[in-house]
Amino acid sequence: MTARRRVLRLEVRADGLRRTERPDTLVAEEPLEIRLGGRPISVTMRTPGDDFDLVAGFLATEGVVRATADLSTMRYCSGVDESGANTYNVVDAQLAAGVAPPTLSLERNFYTTSSCGLCGKASIDAIRTRASWSLEDDDTRFDPSVLAGLPDVLRGAQAVFDRTGGLHAAGLFSADGTLHCLREDVGRHNAVDKVIGWGLREGLLPLRAHVLLVSGRASFELTQKALMAGIPALAAVSAPSALAVDLAAESGMTLVGFLRGHTMNIYAGPDRLT
Amino acid sequence: MTARRRVLRLEVRADGLRRTERPDTLVAEEPLEIRLGGRPISVTMRTPGDDFDLVAGFLATEGVVRATADLSTMRYCSGVDESGANTYNVVDAQLAAGVAPPTLSLERNFYTTSSCGLCGKASIDAIRTRASWSLEDDDTRFDPSVLAGLPDVLRGAQAVFDRTGGLHAAGLFSADGTLHCLREDVGRHNAVDKVIGWGLREGLLPLRAHVLLVSGRASFELTQKALMAGIPALAAVSAPSALAVDLAAESGMTLVGFLRGHTMNIYAGPDRLT
Repeated sequence: MTARRRVLRLEVRADGLRRTERPDTLVAEEPLEIRLGGRPISVTMRTPGDDFDLVAGFLATEGVVRATADLSTMRYCSGVDESGANTYNVVDAQLAAGVAPPTLSLERNFYTTSSCGLCGKASIDAIRTRASWSLEDDDTRFDPSVLAGLPDVLRGAQAVFDRTGGLHAAGLFSADGTLHCLREDVGRHNAVDKVIGWGLREGLLPLRAHVLLVSGRASFELTQKALMAGIPALAAVSAPSALAVDLAAESGMTLVGFLRGHTMNIYAGPDRLT
Repeated sequence: MTARRRVLRLEVRADGLRRTERPDTLVAEEPLEIRLGGRPISVTMRTPGDDFDLVAGFLATEGVVRATADLSTMRYCSGVDESGANTYNVVDAQLAAGVAPPTLSLERNFYTTSSCGLCGKASIDAIRTRASWSLEDDDTRFDPSVLAGLPDVLRGAQAVFDRTGGLHAAGLFSADGTLHCLREDVGRHNAVDKVIGWGLREGLLPLRAHVLLVSGRASFELTQKALMAGIPALAAVSAPSALAVDLAAESGMTLVGFLRGHTMNIYAGPDRLT
């Protein structure tokens, strides 16, 4: 998940420029092509590792699969680089018999189907229509003092972040604050897909009674992914967007932002807090 | 660019939970559909504002247009919401006569064409083939003490960030530290596309002798965009990925990371620093 590169470190000082040269650890980033039954459907720039989780999570959050049994197999294709070595950058997934493949179109984003009235409201309606699970009947309660402790747990468990500073993290916790799955990636949506794919492969979808913590901001896309996985609470260390708040509010999801130190902002679903 | 929502702020204290309810300012996020000659080619979730810059920059960094004259017109389509109001979420661009429209394929990412050997090296080669300008002959020199001051200038000029905490920023500076264009967006790639689109519309491409500063990490995608616009130096407040460093090194781009306080890391192109 990391690579070494030489770096020149400069410090601007009153008495001039100080130069130090040393090796640095950077986060790896490589393209991953996702295929369904041999047909390419997406390419994402991701941090290698947990690729099957990423593919499973991508297919789950796009509404293609709902359960472990919907995926028959996943395997690396034999793409090779110049030296003939497998690149491990192409994964082919086979859907189980009876699972409908997605309709591929040039406008692959599902929330773009309505050419008239493309807007936040239409995006929310489209996502809510596609979601397989309702959050309304998930009566899990979350204790704010437990939530306040989660960012430290996430950072403590992050294997790569401290070395590279270049990774987004997503962690799945139960209401008692236990961390069940942590995934890191150069792309925040990939980190979330990896966590959700782990859940799917473990047979845990919908991920009721869990809270998903993300290291950065809460965008519409991340909120959408949490909803597609049936997660009743999303917490972010940083700010949410207005559309993320609206989607959470209309879906019955608890949305927590600016979860830092002893404080947090509840943007939607405050009833789920004790 | 912002929207107001009510928020419940919680503080976990030794003597119990303190609750405050107040209005909060959040960053707006809405889908933007980009069309070429009436045909949808992409949808991105973006912060409304500077949409024509975003469309022009997207087309420039995808290699569709190279100069102002390549774009004949841009206009909002009449997509309407439920109340009949224009959503301003669909922009149709017309290419000038003689400019070839892109070949649309299901695998829209241009670096995915090689199904055998999809890897970072192939991605770099594909981008370098597509880039219209070489950075090798841009002999601009940047002074580290000037670079060290840029993040403060960027933050000072950010109109929205301080209120929402939810926006990425991209700023284009000349070597003397003058800020020429600042754009903010919920998506970091959009902020960069908006800056580059501004440059295209001002007739400034290639953006020789400039440095592009981004508020977050330097991914492969952002480095690719800078290269497509002919920008010789990219600086990031946070970490770069290994593939971003490799692309910069192979393209003759200066890549600066962890530009904070009085220090910075030079990952590629140190010769361009004084």
